[in-house]
Amino acid sequence: MKSHGYAAHDQSGDFSPFSFERCDVTAANDVAIDILYCGICHSDLHFARNDWGMTVYPVVPGHEIIGRVTQVGDGVTKHKVGDMVAIGCMVDSCQTCDQCDVGDEQFCREGMTATYGWPDKISGGVTYGGFSTNMVAREEFVLALPSALDPARAAPLLCAGITVYSPLKRCGVSEGSRVAVVGLGGLGHMAVKIAAAMGAHVTMISRSPGKAEDAAQLGANSFLLSTDAAAMEMATGTFDVIIDTVPVQHDINPYTPLLDVKGELVLVGQIGPLAETDGATLIFGGKRVSGSFIGGIAETQEMLDFCAEHDVLPDVEMIDMDQVNEAFGRLDKADVRYRFVIDMASLTKPHSATS
Amino acid sequence: MKSHGYAAHDQSGDFSPFSFERCDVTAANDVAIDILYCGICHSDLHFARNDWGMTVYPVVPGHEIIGRVTQVGDGVTKHKVGDMVAIGCMVDSCQTCDQCDVGDEQFCREGMTATYGWPDKISGGVTYGGFSTNMVAREEFVLALPSALDPARAAPLLCAGITVYSPLKRCGVSEGSRVAVVGLGGLGHMAVKIAAAMGAHVTMISRSPGKAEDAAQLGANSFLLSTDAAAMEMATGTFDVIIDTVPVQHDINPYTPLLDVKGELVLVGQIGPLAETDGATLIFGGKRVSGSFIGGIAETQEMLDFCAEHDVLPDVEMIDMDQVNEAFGRLDKADVRYRFVIDMASLTKPHSATS
Repeated sequence: MKSHGYAAHDQSGDFSPFSFERCDVTAANDVAIDILYCGICHSDLHFARNDWGMTVYPVVPGHEIIGRVTQVGDGVTKHKVGDMVAIGCMVDSCQTCDQCDVGDEQFCREGMTATYGWPDKISGGVTYGGFSTNMVAREEFVLALPSALDPARAAPLLCAGITVYSPLKRCGVSEGSRVAVVGLGGLGHMAVKIAAAMGAHVTMISRSPGKAEDAAQLGANSFLLSTDAAAMEMATGTFDVIIDTVPVQHDINPYTPLLDVKGELVLVGQIGPLAETDGATLIFGGKRVSGSFIGGIAETQEMLDFCAEHDVLPDVEMIDMDQVNEAFGRLDKADVRYRFVIDMASLTKPHSATS
Repeated sequence: MKSHGYAAHDQSGDFSPFSFERCDVTAANDVAIDILYCGICHSDLHFARNDWGMTVYPVVPGHEIIGRVTQVGDGVTKHKVGDMVAIGCMVDSCQTCDQCDVGDEQFCREGMTATYGWPDKISGGVTYGGFSTNMVAREEFVLALPSALDPARAAPLLCAGITVYSPLKRCGVSEGSRVAVVGLGGLGHMAVKIAAAMGAHVTMISRSPGKAEDAAQLGANSFLLSTDAAAMEMATGTFDVIIDTVPVQHDINPYTPLLDVKGELVLVGQIGPLAETDGATLIFGGKRVSGSFIGGIAETQEMLDFCAEHDVLPDVEMIDMDQVNEAFGRLDKADVRYRFVIDMASLTKPHSATS
């Protein structure tokens, strides 16, 4: 079927309109959706510019997708035409390996199929993401959007939300847990909201005093200025979990001492080297530094249901599709609170509100 | 009561005979022992030379202690005169905090009392360790030595043994687990033996091809030469747990890719900085780097019982007390397979066999 969207065509990362063919609903488990909203993730920026050396152009990014079902294959039981649904970072996996078996499709032994820019094992082509009018995916990777969630704001849950929900859950965060969040961007703001909804006492750690008010508005109980040596010293041993969302090379050694014994610092942002790590702090406190990568499909559904139940939604700035280049420019300067969401209706409107 | 032993008196780390007073059995829970054997741990070397800037001279090291009970306080129920017992790295803790409550006395909120060179909260003095004829400790920190364990070889279990047993247990190592051990010294050789006894498939990772035969004799199923790029590449993703016993600054980035998804690398050796750590490997595999510090008292007893049941004993080189300076010199060059144990009978013999 025909799809229209925006693609980047080279390393400039500039987007322009792009029309392409998607597979029709052919398999019994196919679900076709019209895309209503799509979030912009920081990794979209890296993909558009080929920062990771793996981009196949043209690339249509977008893996925070909210849509409505328009057609289903004969065997589909989870969704029906008209349902509000969501698609996140993956659209396929082998469904038979040990990792798929335990619901960790993101670690599929045959490799998950990312929602965009990835070899599509079914069509043989390359996957195209949510910066487009419609999409087809197998039902196992299409999530039910709870009716309590505002569809216009929910999109960023599909990546930013699950990326922080999964480690918070795995670390057993619950009522009274002491959670710190480092870095206040798309991931960080969701970590504050979700940890608070889990009942944790949440501390935002930042080097910018100006973030204190924002953090409080998001639900943080306290603010720790990382440049304040006395405050950092006072905070020694006071956190069970630290979610580190900083997406650039940085030094985690100021943070690991803030963990209580057996505490865990979870990296979700920096896909690359960290500074030298101190073994003594880890050994004498029985502490851990871990990485966490999105979450499985069942866990993503659980996260959506949790957010619906606890009224957790991202703070978003809605844009039209033709504002995407401007949005990417601002994203590159961390100038967004806290996630851009594209209103896909703008793609098909004859006159976009801002163009 | 009077005790005789060997102490280091300054940063030279040279040992000479030293007589001192220990508290008598006064408290209801005191247990006095004659020390029969004491292992030499690499940390004894650091303490003797004040490498960590915390040594109070004279220092009598030794925290791998095997002895026989000679006297007990009125309230002692765990041990009786004549029992074979063991004392490890700690001799006291508050016994009331959350960490003591869960059996992790090594993380006591008021600070554990180390077996030597540590402020003794009961006497007000400094603790003296196992390089001596006798000792008094509260019964909670005196372990029962299973009769199946050869007392002459068991001493190193009290530090080297528990240091590797604890993380192997916490990581759920059991039949069929894939465990790698980096570094073949006192800790490494115990990690191989204990992991093998737990039913794991054990791989020794070393940069010295000469270690392959030693590793096999200790019970390792395979050997991975870390300088062999092709072999390291082949081993990608093949371990559930890596026990890293290397006690100097080193780069863990060659090892984390060898972990399977959700695998864990446990640092037990390097009390200091590591090289830059790669966040991408941790994130995309949901992997962890942790530290582990000895183990609690109940777990140490469990480890002794496990070793008795599975016939696990360290490989030791027995020395007389007056050979301690020579032994420390060799230890500094890693010239020991794999742990020195001092036969304390040599302290009281009129003529030591080798002096």
